[in-house]
Amino acid sequence: MASILVLNGPNLNMLGRREPAIYGSETLDDIITRLVAVMDELNGTLEHMQSNHEGDLIDAIHAAWGVHDGIVMNPGAFTHYSYAIRDALATVQLPTIEVHISNVHTREEFRHHSVISPVTVGQIVGLGSDGYEWALRALVRRIEKARNH
Amino acid sequence: MASILVLNGPNLNMLGRREPAIYGSETLDDIITRLVAVMDELNGTLEHMQSNHEGDLIDAIHAAWGVHDGIVMNPGAFTHYSYAIRDALATVQLPTIEVHISNVHTREEFRHHSVISPVTVGQIVGLGSDGYEWALRALVRRIEKARNH
Amino acid sequence: MASILVLNGPNLNMLGRREPAIYGSETLDDIITRLVAVMDELNGTLEHMQSNHEGDLIDAIHAAWGVHDGIVMNPGAFTHYSYAIRDALATVQLPTIEVHISNVHTREEFRHHSVISPVTVGQIVGLGSDGYEWALRALVRRIEKARNH
Amino acid sequence: MASILVLNGPNLNMLGRREPAIYGSETLDDIITRLVAVMDELNGTLEHMQSNHEGDLIDAIHAAWGVHDGIVMNPGAFTHYSYAIRDALATVQLPTIEVHISNVHTREEFRHHSVISPVTVGQIVGLGSDGYEWALRALVRRIEKARNH
Amino acid sequence: MASILVLNGPNLNMLGRREPAIYGSETLDDIITRLVAVMDELNGTLEHMQSNHEGDLIDAIHAAWGVHDGIVMNPGAFTHYSYAIRDALATVQLPTIEVHISNVHTREEFRHHSVISPVTVGQIVGLGSDGYEWALRALVRRIEKARNH
Amino acid sequence: MASILVLNGPNLNMLGRREPAIYGSETLDDIITRLVAVMDELNGTLEHMQSNHEGDLIDAIHAAWGVHDGIVMNPGAFTHYSYAIRDALATVQLPTIEVHISNVHTREEFRHHSVISPVTVGQIVGLGSDGYEWALRALVRRIEKARNH
Amino acid sequence: MASILVLNGPNLNMLGRREPAIYGSETLDDIITRLVAVMDELNGTLEHMQSNHEGDLIDAIHAAWGVHDGIVMNPGAFTHYSYAIRDALATVQLPTIEVHISNVHTREEFRHHSVISPVTVGQIVGLGSDGYEWALRALVRRIEKARNH
Amino acid sequence: MASILVLNGPNLNMLGRREPAIYGSETLDDIITRLVAVMDELNGTLEHMQSNHEGDLIDAIHAAWGVHDGIVMNPGAFTHYSYAIRDALATVQLPTIEVHISNVHTREEFRHHSVISPVTVGQIVGLGSDGYEWALRALVRRIEKARNH
Amino acid sequence: MASILVLNGPNLNMLGRREPAIYGSETLDDIITRLVAVMDELNGTLEHMQSNHEGDLIDAIHAAWGVHDGIVMNPGAFTHYSYAIRDALATVQLPTIEVHISNVHTREEFRHHSVISPVTVGQIVGLGSDGYEWALRALVRRIEKARNH
Amino acid sequence: MASILVLNGPNLNMLGRREPAIYGSETLDDIITRLVAVMDELNGTLEHMQSNHEGDLIDAIHAAWGVHDGIVMNPGAFTHYSYAIRDALATVQLPTIEVHISNVHTREEFRHHSVISPVTVGQIVGLGSDGYEWALRALVRRIEKARNH
Amino acid sequence: MASILVLNGPNLNMLGRREPAIYGSETLDDIITRLVAVMDELNGTLEHMQSNHEGDLIDAIHAAWGVHDGIVMNPGAFTHYSYAIRDALATVQLPTIEVHISNVHTREEFRHHSVISPVTVGQIVGLGSDGYEWALRALVRRIEKARNH
Amino acid sequence: MASILVLNGPNLNMLGRREPAIYGSETLDDIITRLVAVMDELNGTLEHMQSNHEGDLIDAIHAAWGVHDGIVMNPGAFTHYSYAIRDALATVQLPTIEVHISNVHTREEFRHHSVISPVTVGQIVGLGSDGYEWALRALVRRIEKARNH
Repeated sequence: MASILVLNGPNLNMLGRREPAIYGSETLDDIITRLVAVMDELNGTLEHMQSNHEGDLIDAIHAAWGVHDGIVMNPGAFTHYSYAIRDALATVQLPTIEVHISNVHTREEFRHHSVISPVTVGQIVGLGSDGYEWALRALVRRIEKARNH
Repeated sequence: MASILVLNGPNLNMLGRREPAIYGSETLDDIITRLVAVMDELNGTLEHMQSNHEGDLIDAIHAAWGVHDGIVMNPGAFTHYSYAIRDALATVQLPTIEVHISNVHTREEFRHHSVISPVTVGQIVGLGSDGYEWALRALVRRIEKARNH
Repeated sequence: MASILVLNGPNLNMLGRREPAIYGSETLDDIITRLVAVMDELNGTLEHMQSNHEGDLIDAIHAAWGVHDGIVMNPGAFTHYSYAIRDALATVQLPTIEVHISNVHTREEFRHHSVISPVTVGQIVGLGSDGYEWALRALVRRIEKARNH
Repeated sequence: MASILVLNGPNLNMLGRREPAIYGSETLDDIITRLVAVMDELNGTLEHMQSNHEGDLIDAIHAAWGVHDGIVMNPGAFTHYSYAIRDALATVQLPTIEVHISNVHTREEFRHHSVISPVTVGQIVGLGSDGYEWALRALVRRIEKARNH
Repeated sequence: MASILVLNGPNLNMLGRREPAIYGSETLDDIITRLVAVMDELNGTLEHMQSNHEGDLIDAIHAAWGVHDGIVMNPGAFTHYSYAIRDALATVQLPTIEVHISNVHTREEFRHHSVISPVTVGQIVGLGSDGYEWALRALVRRIEKARNH
Repeated sequence: MASILVLNGPNLNMLGRREPAIYGSETLDDIITRLVAVMDELNGTLEHMQSNHEGDLIDAIHAAWGVHDGIVMNPGAFTHYSYAIRDALATVQLPTIEVHISNVHTREEFRHHSVISPVTVGQIVGLGSDGYEWALRALVRRIEKARNH
Repeated sequence: MASILVLNGPNLNMLGRREPAIYGSETLDDIITRLVAVMDELNGTLEHMQSNHEGDLIDAIHAAWGVHDGIVMNPGAFTHYSYAIRDALATVQLPTIEVHISNVHTREEFRHHSVISPVTVGQIVGLGSDGYEWALRALVRRIEKARNH
Repeated sequence: MASILVLNGPNLNMLGRREPAIYGSETLDDIITRLVAVMDELNGTLEHMQSNHEGDLIDAIHAAWGVHDGIVMNPGAFTHYSYAIRDALATVQLPTIEVHISNVHTREEFRHHSVISPVTVGQIVGLGSDGYEWALRALVRRIEKARNH
Repeated sequence: MASILVLNGPNLNMLGRREPAIYGSETLDDIITRLVAVMDELNGTLEHMQSNHEGDLIDAIHAAWGVHDGIVMNPGAFTHYSYAIRDALATVQLPTIEVHISNVHTREEFRHHSVISPVTVGQIVGLGSDGYEWALRALVRRIEKARNH
Repeated sequence: MASILVLNGPNLNMLGRREPAIYGSETLDDIITRLVAVMDELNGTLEHMQSNHEGDLIDAIHAAWGVHDGIVMNPGAFTHYSYAIRDALATVQLPTIEVHISNVHTREEFRHHSVISPVTVGQIVGLGSDGYEWALRALVRRIEKARNH
Repeated sequence: MASILVLNGPNLNMLGRREPAIYGSETLDDIITRLVAVMDELNGTLEHMQSNHEGDLIDAIHAAWGVHDGIVMNPGAFTHYSYAIRDALATVQLPTIEVHISNVHTREEFRHHSVISPVTVGQIVGLGSDGYEWALRALVRRIEKARNH
Repeated sequence: MASILVLNGPNLNMLGRREPAIYGSETLDDIITRLVAVMDELNGTLEHMQSNHEGDLIDAIHAAWGVHDGIVMNPGAFTHYSYAIRDALATVQLPTIEVHISNVHTREEFRHHSVISPVTVGQIVGLGSDGYEWALRALVRRIEKARNH
């Protein structure tokens, strides 16, 4: 029974809230509701937290240590400069999968580089909000394999 | 009747508070008082917020959506690395004018590059605290033109 | 009923064939067998091809046009310089997910840059051989959504 | 009573002359007419000069010394490589405000760098042809403040 | 009577074969047919070869030595990294003109640099499929001038 | 009946005038005489202008608008830094082919980069003075095709 | 009697709290206790503050102005990108010594560059938690020298 | 009794075949005949293979695993970009010595960098075709030392 | 009897004309008068020309061919970007000495690089207006040596 | 009882010897006298050596092996390029603390990079000549801790 | 009968002298003894010199002119920055082979670049102390071939 | 009566000593003899020193302080990396003119950059051995002007 922390960084609270006719109406709440269902199916639990504050995300990563089995994180724009979040992940050493909703490699140059990736297990990029689901499933399988070793 | 959010980033709260004999005694409060008068003259209103916290500035930008007609922002040192503030401005898509009090192009190399500029309407640089006033006047004229179209 | 082409680039034929006591004994054949089972579960079909020859991979991508609905590709070392494979993918415009077995961002500098990523839907990196499975599932879901639109 | 030299660099003579239905019909003459009116309001005078010749612009800057109180300049493409114009401005040491009609930071990479900015008072960027007006007003206020000191 | 080898690199076999309504219906065969007619007019002969395999192109260049008088080559994406093709051209020392159908200087950064150009006579870029014809005509004129010297 | 402006930049007036025993005796006048004959054959007309002055070349480009159907230009050393000429070409939007007499890719590093290429139709490089002729022929064919569309 | 502010940046709260058998059991509290004893010996006082929030550290630096005589700071990962903290230190102009527990020059490339160093008196790097003590002693000696001048 | 695979990359089949009066008449066959004699003297055997096809070289490296004791390789132009060959060598982990006939450090810039060197035992550069012999002798000595350990 | 062309580029006409109390009162005319006297002493003649127009300087270099024996040139800011002047000097192949009044290596970064130097005999830098005199003397000695050979 | 080698590199012999009224009169001898007193207090001994010769410093480092317990070194300008000194320190593997009198991070760019730092325990920078004392005290404490382990 | 100078640069005197149990006990003297035997076998003579002083190595290279027939040199860390040694080798123009004991391409980035290589005949890298022997044999063969020509 | 120290760096002792038929027979002694005569003419004295040892040159610079009035220095290859010589010159603050015999800007890239230039009065480059004479004359004139002020 895996327990996963799902973290979302700056601006992701705005998903689906502006001009739904154009950008689609799926909000972050909608995504989390779907992820909770996936975790039920996998007999696991999920805590979610979103913040525009780098320090809040670091505090949450610290708090996960000894409480959760792994982290699924979309660091938003912090991906590209927050060495502090990188150090937080390296400190608690929980297996982490990094998620990006869009294919960052087709966007601005600065989005091609992640300071977070070297301390994660891997990345899932460009698969839309489904990326969170695949990350959850992959992380739970990995945790269970490690447990049964 | 335009409603403008004026945002000031880190360290701008210290304007005019240290060694007034040397650096001048104009504080951020003094500047805001002048800007409020300008907005009165232009039949508009102004909300001001200063923070040393990146997350607070992002929250304020989100909150401006549907409330204000535009933003005048001096991002302080966040100008040079806060991709998170850039994304926040890109998300709410309010017309924004970036202001810098000094001519950043005559200072250290790192101050020559702004990660914020690509998501703004334009920049006013090096005109002292008057830069805020010109930005306000230019932004209001632009908003009124768009309205009357 | 989706039809997927799974492509593996240079050296991936050697997976699990050298020193199984140390590196594990899972071969590329083992992985493909698992992927075929996944496609059965998803009511789809899968063609697999591995080559150490860049030209063979390009020929295979061309041949997929009008035959398959999408591509899952691990380009191996071609990831870092084969603009010819990139152009082949851009030419046929089939939705493609790029897979890397290891977290390339913790390895040599040259492995951090992919010339393939800008023409794919997204990437799954560092999740071991499971990465192929998540890519298959994500690609099939995407193809079915597009079909039902 | 301030006297200002307004300088426009290469290609700005073509403003509003090609395909007015698409690009708008405001010509450089229209802009100058507006600026003259602004200077009347401010009890000042304005000399305007446009040239596609770098040498002519340098000659004009030299000639302004002892004649005008300041310069408003849109150096056009010379912005990005004319160290000769930069040196001319540094030689006469008249307060200069640099104007760009469009937000150069959202255009090609080479437009992000100005060799002129370090010898100016400041820049006004991206505010359309209004930028000239704000520059005039800011420059006159600055000149009058200095005079009354 | 000049004998020319026309070489086309990876993906050029796909010209005109996908979505003719959008991209035009001129195929590589159509182009070659036109080029053969041009060579007839010029009393010369032409051999054509296309391959997605770098090694095949190198073999063909070697085989041209002592057989053909010159080469017209569109190296496709190999333009940007195949030092092996460059060395093959340098080895046989046949006069070669490099052709690119589109203006590569308006496309992605990596397409601006050719490792092939330094060992060719010259380049014809951006003139569409006509570029092959101009290259043929220029190469034949050059060969005949050298012969008549 | 196409009307073409042929422009030559700095130092091209010196072609064939120094040490003919060594460098050949073909002058710019000789080349233009040949080009005029080509235009006669093609039922078109040609205006030629050479200048060592960047501003004169920009003025000539502006004057071509509404007068000529296209431009063949060898910008000489301005190729590598004249963003002002680039902007002039972009402003009048006449189809332009860039010509270089020698293969610039076998010369000094700085000659490998052109700031002009992105606003032209294409380039003809390294084919000697014949390059002008191929450019003329290609440009006239292109203009006539567009006309007959 | 010197009064010193000791500041610790992100993740330093985790010192000694994870796997003490491996990493040692000295916590940040232990270090501060030792530093307080050193200040007693030196007849001075010490205020300590740790935060994972960049804004909190900036607020603390501002608050130190007029209250403390100097700052000993380990900025953690903020060392490498927080121009906002740099500006805060430059604003209050208290003598500051930067401390890093490990030798950052033997770690990842990004840890070799500090944006903070140019506004400090100096750095003490790689001497373990003792580095704080040496920084305290050096700063107090410097403050007393300046006072006795 | 050592068994060595000698591999030659693209264009090395042309050695000595063009203009022997100028470049010398030693062909690749001549070199291999000499190397076979050296291996006879050393009581070892040698297999040779040359290809212009990257994929063929990778296949040969894979096939050497469990068959040969080491590799002497001149990768030709693949030296500078074939990460696929590098990965093949890293996979089979046979001791490999890289040979270049000419002193690549006195030639073009791109020839100064090898992507192959980091996975080899060492390099012998610039000693002409004798370099292959020194590499054979060094590799055999190394293999025998390891065997006798 | 040597004949020398002395060329001065942009802004050098302003030498000594602004604020003589501060910058000294030596004008360009004063310098030229001194240089003429030096040439009298050396039994040679001198033509001087200053222009802020790049094209005028190129025209003058062309006109010197067959008229003067050498050139002493201070290209001013054109030093750093005028490849057109460089080509003009390379075309006429007159021995040229480049002069800079100040030590450009202690000024801004962009002044450290000269595009002119590679086509000159040498440079005299930082010796004040005397540098012109040393350049004249050195050039005349060199011309006379060549003549007497 | 620790034995420390104190090494000073080029130009440090000139400390305090030129214009004492301006630069202070503390010479290198004065500093060493103070350091000897510190070592007496710590019951240790100190050998000092200064040289402007890179080779002498390397010889001294070699000679320290088996004789001293650690090294305090100010490599002067060798800091920025002497890979030979770096290798010497790496060879003898004595714990070394690097000292710089001034804050090198506020000086020229080239002084920001040390090739020595990666082979030292740590650095003390910008604390004036006191930096040597803190380095001595820190190194002795470290040596004694290691001894008592 | 060839006469060879063998030069070893900084720190190579320490080979085999520290912790023989770990690093092996082969000293530089042992290597030289072996090389002398090789030279005996080849009927040649050998002079050896090692120094940690760059100037001594330059003096030795100068002294070799007219005395020795060639040089085998391991420049140690001077490989990466001693342009003075490079110039010394270029001055005497004796055929030189550069030796590195370890495969420098698998070590730190700065060890990948040699300023010495462009003035040598070739390099032997990564073959352990045997590399000196292969270099001697190759150099003697080359000298004898040249003599017999 | 000026006293000048003339310094020559590594390899300059070899001037004119190798193959005089080709390179000319002017030795360093010949040059110095001429310079002594020049100093006699100017009523000054000259001390000369050449060394291949960086440390010797630094010692000589230190010794010049209080003894000589200025330095003429050709640092040879130390020009490009000896920050230690740069610091020595900056320490003694004697006016220094840097001389290079050849035009270093037409040679290898690494010779285009001098670390010495920023601490000198100026440079004389490419004027052959005469450059020393012009430097002497310029330096003496400068010293006498300063004295008569």
